[in-house]
Amino acid sequence: MSFRSVAIIGLGLLGGSTGLAVRQYLPGCATTGWDANPATRARAAERGLVARVCDTAVEAVADADLVILCVPVGAMGDVARLIAPALKADAVISDVGSSKQTVAEALAEALPGMAVVPAHPVAGTERSGPDAGFAALFQKRWCIITPPADADPAKVEALRQFWETLGAKVEVMTPQHHDMVLAVTSHLPHLIAYTIVGTADDLEDVTQSEVIKYSAGGFRDFTRIAASDPTMWRDVFLSNKEAVLSMLQRFTEDLTALQRAIRVGDGQQLFDHFTRTRDIRRSIIEEGQDDARPDFGRSDHSA
Amino acid sequence: MSFRSVAIIGLGLLGGSTGLAVRQYLPGCATTGWDANPATRARAAERGLVARVCDTAVEAVADADLVILCVPVGAMGDVARLIAPALKADAVISDVGSSKQTVAEALAEALPGMAVVPAHPVAGTERSGPDAGFAALFQKRWCIITPPADADPAKVEALRQFWETLGAKVEVMTPQHHDMVLAVTSHLPHLIAYTIVGTADDLEDVTQSEVIKYSAGGFRDFTRIAASDPTMWRDVFLSNKEAVLSMLQRFTEDLTALQRAIRVGDGQQLFDHFTRTRDIRRSIIEEGQDDARPDFGRSDHSA
Repeated sequence: MSFRSVAIIGLGLLGGSTGLAVRQYLPGCATTGWDANPATRARAAERGLVARVCDTAVEAVADADLVILCVPVGAMGDVARLIAPALKADAVISDVGSSKQTVAEALAEALPGMAVVPAHPVAGTERSGPDAGFAALFQKRWCIITPPADADPAKVEALRQFWETLGAKVEVMTPQHHDMVLAVTSHLPHLIAYTIVGTADDLEDVTQSEVIKYSAGGFRDFTRIAASDPTMWRDVFLSNKEAVLSMLQRFTEDLTALQRAIRVGDGQQLFDHFTRTRDIRRSIIEEGQDDARPDFGRSDHSA
Repeated sequence: MSFRSVAIIGLGLLGGSTGLAVRQYLPGCATTGWDANPATRARAAERGLVARVCDTAVEAVADADLVILCVPVGAMGDVARLIAPALKADAVISDVGSSKQTVAEALAEALPGMAVVPAHPVAGTERSGPDAGFAALFQKRWCIITPPADADPAKVEALRQFWETLGAKVEVMTPQHHDMVLAVTSHLPHLIAYTIVGTADDLEDVTQSEVIKYSAGGFRDFTRIAASDPTMWRDVFLSNKEAVLSMLQRFTEDLTALQRAIRVGDGQQLFDHFTRTRDIRRSIIEEGQDDARPDFGRSDHSA
């Protein structure tokens, strides 16, 4: 099976990018879309994020084989209830949410008997809204599919092919494992980045102007992800609470150990720790998930 | 006054970039250099990081008007003692160290009566060694000069002009203030990045391969600075201990507050915090210290 008509609910960075990617890489597939915000709908129509922007969610999903919910994870249940009466009986319902256990539960509860196959394309930028999306967002990025135990294998396979056609590499895992993996690779980094940017903003002895001027010393790397969409991230932390708190506990223990090494002047412990962390960077570059150029090619020099 | 002969001691990322920048932007200025590591000296000569790589530090500084120490901050005192007998009486001795109070003290003690004018170009990449340097490293970056209270204004001004010619923007401040500003804009971010990369590396339930695959969710932004030179950073933390521990205390308090908000489900607090941190990102881009393109132009799409 393959999808002939895709409906996208929520037309921000992820929804807009998905729509543009379908239009580019699956040109035979019909695309409809809806967003709760009228201004976003208007802009989505101007940019052509989907072929047809609808005035209601019900209208958008009426003919869809595949419905992708691209709303903050805390809104998934409400949106699912909104579209439930209009869904085709054999439609696949998926999403792009950054946490999967609570989303899977919310969708299963709102859509009894429907084929719910949650997914999470691990891709994004710090931008948000209907102007942020672009068709190439998923190229070479991973998309994690977390089907329920009783999912129809043909529908899971169709969703895999869908994301692969949009440029992603696909893995299948349980929602529990997804939430633990993403807690460390995404949620904890965002929490820490949000924290340190806030800490810097609160200082009395160092002006905000100084923080900005000297940010090239390392701070700027944190500000990118601390500029991500506040609503989305509020929902992520609340919905993946247990895994995030567990990873945060480990992080705090490790930070305390390094803090102690600094306080007592244990240079060897610092050196050993800093040496170990270099290797993981090399692996990320080899895997194609980042760019080895100094400053990620931020400037135009060739080193 | 201007410098006609510059000696660079230490030919890694900063020393090599300084040498290349002098050769490019001050072609009339003689350049000599030395590094404690014979392999680094050989490679520095091959790349032409300075016009003349010397076999001893004493030889390198003998004719220099300006000597720039580009070694880890913990080695500044030893290197200064090594070159002390060979320095010209009116030479200016400067450095590029990331902490300034302890460096200023070490240099003043090792070089009594000499014109010591410490400096810190806030620029770098995660690479290190004699292959890492490039002439454009300092373009549009800030260089902080921290002259002692009794410094000769003409020599401070000459050092300012030197760095401006190499492309940097220059600020003058006290070493105390520098160390506090850099603790938040550079040292704390590095410590946190080193910590979280180590935390991820230690997990039992999430494989290193998974951490790497899904790093585009935010983690990869931390790995760049956690790949920085271990010796340099060990020394930075030990030499700027008080300011780093003080900033770390504030950070930990703020992180604990967000942790509590997650635990009790206080979405409003999370949302308010995440909204505030967006603005600082915008300011950094406006100031030219980062690139607004999604992924810093890591991929080649145009958003």
